[in-house]
Amino acid sequence: MEQVIQAIEALLGPQGCLIDQDARRPYESGARYGNGSAACIARPANVEEAAELLRLCARDKIRIVAQGANTGLVGAASPDRSGRDVVLSMERIKGIVEIDPVDRVVQAYAGTRLSDLNQALAPHGLCFPIDLGADPSLGGMLAANTGGARLIRYGDVRHNVLGLEALLMNPPGQRLDLTNRLRKNNTGPDWKQWFIGTGGAYGIVTQAVLQVHPLPQQCATALVVPASPEAGLLLLRDAERHFSDFLTAFEGISHNAMQSVLRHLPGMQAPFEPLPPYAFLIELSSARPRSADFDLEKLFGAWLEACFGDLILDAVIDKPEVLWRLRHAISESVRHEGKVIAFDIAVPRSRLAAFREEAVALVGRGYPGVGVFDFGHWGDGGLHFNLVVPQALMEVCSEERIAVLRQEIYDLAVRKYRGSFSAEHGVGPFNQSFYDRYTAPEQQALAAGMQAAFDPERLLGATRFMSAQ
Amino acid sequence: MEQVIQAIEALLGPQGCLIDQDARRPYESGARYGNGSAACIARPANVEEAAELLRLCARDKIRIVAQGANTGLVGAASPDRSGRDVVLSMERIKGIVEIDPVDRVVQAYAGTRLSDLNQALAPHGLCFPIDLGADPSLGGMLAANTGGARLIRYGDVRHNVLGLEALLMNPPGQRLDLTNRLRKNNTGPDWKQWFIGTGGAYGIVTQAVLQVHPLPQQCATALVVPASPEAGLLLLRDAERHFSDFLTAFEGISHNAMQSVLRHLPGMQAPFEPLPPYAFLIELSSARPRSADFDLEKLFGAWLEACFGDLILDAVIDKPEVLWRLRHAISESVRHEGKVIAFDIAVPRSRLAAFREEAVALVGRGYPGVGVFDFGHWGDGGLHFNLVVPQALMEVCSEERIAVLRQEIYDLAVRKYRGSFSAEHGVGPFNQSFYDRYTAPEQQALAAGMQAAFDPERLLGATRFMSAQ
Repeated sequence: MEQVIQAIEALLGPQGCLIDQDARRPYESGARYGNGSAACIARPANVEEAAELLRLCARDKIRIVAQGANTGLVGAASPDRSGRDVVLSMERIKGIVEIDPVDRVVQAYAGTRLSDLNQALAPHGLCFPIDLGADPSLGGMLAANTGGARLIRYGDVRHNVLGLEALLMNPPGQRLDLTNRLRKNNTGPDWKQWFIGTGGAYGIVTQAVLQVHPLPQQCATALVVPASPEAGLLLLRDAERHFSDFLTAFEGISHNAMQSVLRHLPGMQAPFEPLPPYAFLIELSSARPRSADFDLEKLFGAWLEACFGDLILDAVIDKPEVLWRLRHAISESVRHEGKVIAFDIAVPRSRLAAFREEAVALVGRGYPGVGVFDFGHWGDGGLHFNLVVPQALMEVCSEERIAVLRQEIYDLAVRKYRGSFSAEHGVGPFNQSFYDRYTAPEQQALAAGMQAAFDPERLLGATRFMSAQ
Repeated sequence: MEQVIQAIEALLGPQGCLIDQDARRPYESGARYGNGSAACIARPANVEEAAELLRLCARDKIRIVAQGANTGLVGAASPDRSGRDVVLSMERIKGIVEIDPVDRVVQAYAGTRLSDLNQALAPHGLCFPIDLGADPSLGGMLAANTGGARLIRYGDVRHNVLGLEALLMNPPGQRLDLTNRLRKNNTGPDWKQWFIGTGGAYGIVTQAVLQVHPLPQQCATALVVPASPEAGLLLLRDAERHFSDFLTAFEGISHNAMQSVLRHLPGMQAPFEPLPPYAFLIELSSARPRSADFDLEKLFGAWLEACFGDLILDAVIDKPEVLWRLRHAISESVRHEGKVIAFDIAVPRSRLAAFREEAVALVGRGYPGVGVFDFGHWGDGGLHFNLVVPQALMEVCSEERIAVLRQEIYDLAVRKYRGSFSAEHGVGPFNQSFYDRYTAPEQQALAAGMQAAFDPERLLGATRFMSAQ
């Protein structure tokens, strides 16, 4: 091991190889899960160095865990505890290669942050509209196939990747250049898909070409109180009927989530008094500026008025910044309430209300005192069904009990509602056991074939898609 | 072979197994390319029978070529000339499983025709907006990943598939159930991608779950004459700036293509006198009905007026049916002009005008008398760069010369312009040699790994993605 670390340092220089424990630490723990110890943190300055690193590690069968901005939520970018993993940080391989406004594309290196991407795009009137709480790297966004709050309009990352470049492990360091800018290209398997949403298990993304979108020039935003829990889905359907060209978000926020933000976010005013059981944040936007003959706020206002009584009990029309501030502050606020048991679930959106009702009842029945602080992307069936164990209950809520609860909720979502145990966070060591539980044997068999083709020595990534045997 | 055919007949019944030469014939030739002879045409009535057929053929190492509505344009659904292929027609495995208007999804069997799908969706105010000249089956659309004229708004088939079911060859007849309805599901590799755009090489799609879209309630359509060839791209960019929420088509039509339609389509009036060198069919649409405060035709008219002089020389605003009739009649009309050499090319859309100019010059220089009758999807960089060898030149334009011409055009598109030799038709025996020519060795090596995992005996499909060796 000592020799490998020396070789990496010789290859990448002291800047490119962090060995000291203090220097390593920020890279060894994930944003939510994942906590290990790496042999070293390799920080290559360019793709050639990264390719050489792969060759070097392959020779000694050292596992490589790629890491972007380390904002992932399933531990997929964290080393294990063996002290033998090399973390490959992509943070120095960054920057915009080109923006082409006629193509409406941007090509950039994997280490580029989402915020930097959008800053570079803005002067061209363009944006990459993946809306997230964090500021991930481009490579990490591809590895996790991030979704976010505006998927209903723009799709997830996968829908917007036109091309990419990846480094393969078979043979080690092989560069695979798929950086085309084509919107139509039916020339065989769509190889780029193998590297999206797979957490670096089949190769390491070094560059991506993204389709980007015109910056919205006007929007209309409201927080509305549905007439009943079921009214949420009717409201969604009606909103799509009237505004399918413009609907950019349809987010659900529970009473507890709202209350938590009001308690912990300084200066936030209560949108309703008293707080309703549930509310929906609805956003319309258009790349066409507001004008007398095209005014989204006006159209939206008329629709809200028409829905009053039947579907909507109350509504707050406010500056989008204020309403989104409330929405984006939930995750952080809820952390102050006690121990958070986070879920990133999706079900078919038509069944979201039914799933939520059944899951809330399950918790109430089996785990009295545990609070439900959920919010979710109702437009696409995503639900962050977050539970909070209050301080007073910590003693009686053991790790084992929480594990049972977790599985009960996932079983309900996946087995009864044909949903997903990971809507947008991906698969990593944190939820590897649930992947094993819910993935059909025939899929795991295919994954074994993929593993043999792409990484026969199993040297890439912290996630395994084939069964453990 | 005789025994295998008997076994198939025993399994599927006389209705399900066509042996007679006359009965086989419609299935043995493709719509444009592909012309072979099959051992028999197997027409299973359901997925179970199809699975059993796969097992039966695998035992005797008989190759299976899946076929939908047989509208493909690269021969990928045609048997070879050995008389040993079994054509698996999916035409009897059809019908809608479910339409869910809240989910905005339809689940249907692979043999369902696009027109039937849309007919079933219409009462729900929904549609599957892949716009094509042909009426393919759902399975064929997935196998080819069809694009069409409205990709700029809705994406290709791949973008709209939420789930599918496929039959695998490893082990033979294994059913792979990926029929979920989730818009967010990041639980590992997106397995469904393996079966989209791969011509049945890795499995046979039996069902699909599609995201569908609200039926447009109003549209605005115009045929416009750009001020210059380069003005086309400026016009596209400007149209996206003003109407990115509504732009559903931006199609280019050459002088020759227009003239051909006028010559051969009865009752079609000339949109312009004289016909311009090039014209663009621009369509906006919205799912929101026309109203005083939202009228696309009014907004569109104002924009066209503002573009006059600088970008646009002339424009015809007409009923969409009339303009689309002109557009959709091109392929058929051009066939009357002589021998058509068809190209289905894409380049980055910012380079489409430059590519076209260079390709036209190449033809004029090396192949005088050969006419260029192109049209294309400028919104997504697709160009049907169709050439016509007039009757009088047939003698001097040998097959060998045409083959050289074909390769010159493809080399220009793929190598110089980083484009695609198959934008939307896929890969089949017709263009297999170009796949081999333009696909990097490292991709073909990955394909060999995929082949080993999915179909080690190479029994599925008429297309090979690994190198011939």
